[in-house]
Amino acid sequence: MTARQPLIQRLCVIGVGLIGGSLARALREAGAVGEVIGSGRGEENLRAAVHLGVVDRYDTDPAQAVIGADVVVVAVPLGALKTVLHSIVPSLSTATVITDVGSAKGSVVADVEQIYGQIPPNFVPGHPIAGTEKSGVEASFATLFQHRRVILTPLAETSATAHQLVRQMWTLTGAEVVDMGVHHHDAVLAATSHLPHLLAYTLVDTLARLDDRAEIFRYAAGGFRDFTRIASSDPQMWHDICVANREQLLEMIELFVTDLGQLAESIRTDDHATVLATFQRAKRARDNLYLE
Amino acid sequence: MTARQPLIQRLCVIGVGLIGGSLARALREAGAVGEVIGSGRGEENLRAAVHLGVVDRYDTDPAQAVIGADVVVVAVPLGALKTVLHSIVPSLSTATVITDVGSAKGSVVADVEQIYGQIPPNFVPGHPIAGTEKSGVEASFATLFQHRRVILTPLAETSATAHQLVRQMWTLTGAEVVDMGVHHHDAVLAATSHLPHLLAYTLVDTLARLDDRAEIFRYAAGGFRDFTRIASSDPQMWHDICVANREQLLEMIELFVTDLGQLAESIRTDDHATVLATFQRAKRARDNLYLE
Repeated sequence: MTARQPLIQRLCVIGVGLIGGSLARALREAGAVGEVIGSGRGEENLRAAVHLGVVDRYDTDPAQAVIGADVVVVAVPLGALKTVLHSIVPSLSTATVITDVGSAKGSVVADVEQIYGQIPPNFVPGHPIAGTEKSGVEASFATLFQHRRVILTPLAETSATAHQLVRQMWTLTGAEVVDMGVHHHDAVLAATSHLPHLLAYTLVDTLARLDDRAEIFRYAAGGFRDFTRIASSDPQMWHDICVANREQLLEMIELFVTDLGQLAESIRTDDHATVLATFQRAKRARDNLYLE
Repeated sequence: MTARQPLIQRLCVIGVGLIGGSLARALREAGAVGEVIGSGRGEENLRAAVHLGVVDRYDTDPAQAVIGADVVVVAVPLGALKTVLHSIVPSLSTATVITDVGSAKGSVVADVEQIYGQIPPNFVPGHPIAGTEKSGVEASFATLFQHRRVILTPLAETSATAHQLVRQMWTLTGAEVVDMGVHHHDAVLAATSHLPHLLAYTLVDTLARLDDRAEIFRYAAGGFRDFTRIASSDPQMWHDICVANREQLLEMIELFVTDLGQLAESIRTDDHATVLATFQRAKRARDNLYLE
């Protein structure tokens, strides 16, 4: 009688935060991993990850941590990706499948090309559309990806086997996995994620710099709390995303500012029909989206 | 042995929606009202209000509904306030205390002055900072105002007795009642409520008009859902608020667009320090606000 083999014998997670930690937890609960090795810059966080049972052991040196891994998940902020990839290249076996979780994919592909001189067949760019405004391994939980979507943006060079393994890995976390082109991914995410984060950060910062900010924040209600929740997200991570997806984000900002300016003009000029029609269209679109 | 007298023998609520309905429910549960009369334009909604026990009876004619009322709460969209006030003037006794729930107070005071030729001593402008994105009496619930703030903006002409009665009424719903100047109220609310609603409506509408909107919305995650929740609010009500608080809202929009433009410029010019510092300030401000 042989025990059933897990999908991944040895998993290495570099960056054991909300996403990396939740992935490790989910795969463990699914019985999909043998051993989980953590790595990352914060040793305290890694110790917590061991203590919480999220990883079996850790090595602060990614080059050491990846040795013998079947799959390496790089779950660091986008700005740290290149350094991490660079450091692990000498230790990687050609059989090791590598994937990432970055919220912008164009910059990831560019980083990978720069490090490797080409797109290696065993690298599968990925992006789980999940998260909360919290950070760190303490915020991670096994069900984070359930009923969420994970977008993979495989390239022409990507091996079908590597692609399939990463797809299976995410499917076992309860996520729905879809494939998408790199540029299309970045356009979609600029609209639904990167722009909203930028707007929330800007709004809170604008208000926080007003003279009567204490008074203003005192009267913020439930709507404000929900609206600004994403402004509590990790600043470094979102800095990296905004810079990484600069072109598409700037395009979306321009579109938004144009529309906002037109709406402001409608308010200024007492064009009631346009203001009302805009709000009605928006409500209809959002109600259709969630049916809640 | 005499039964304890309720605070308000006869309450008339004009506009039995989320706010008006929740107020009636809360006062009933507190034993603070004898009879509740509803009024408003939608007879179906009023019938539902009777069926749900929110009001005892209704009259679609506000002029009839207010007869004999000790307190009249006008809880209609701001754009309908003047018409309602105008219609009830002939039926009101000088003893009747009137209050409203409008989200902008400068326009309410102007409407009242225009109808009455002066500020009547028994009119107390009010604004409960509470609500959800839902509308109608079916969405109302007795605990809506618990631990929420209600702002009253009494004027020099306002009678202390009327002010005190409205204060007591809201206190019995579980709200914390505070007084504020009209202009200050409108500035604070433009910042924390009116601008966020406008941004949420604009964002959803901007995305809803893109060619690949279906694809875009499909990949919207939890952050987007929270961020845009207020875009499901009642379009007519928010149209009225934006028009009513035009000057202060336009000022806030300008401030916001300037800040957003500067941030976009920082992203464009690779000024990483400014982008990161902005996000960090915003996160700190929001985390301090909610400590969640």
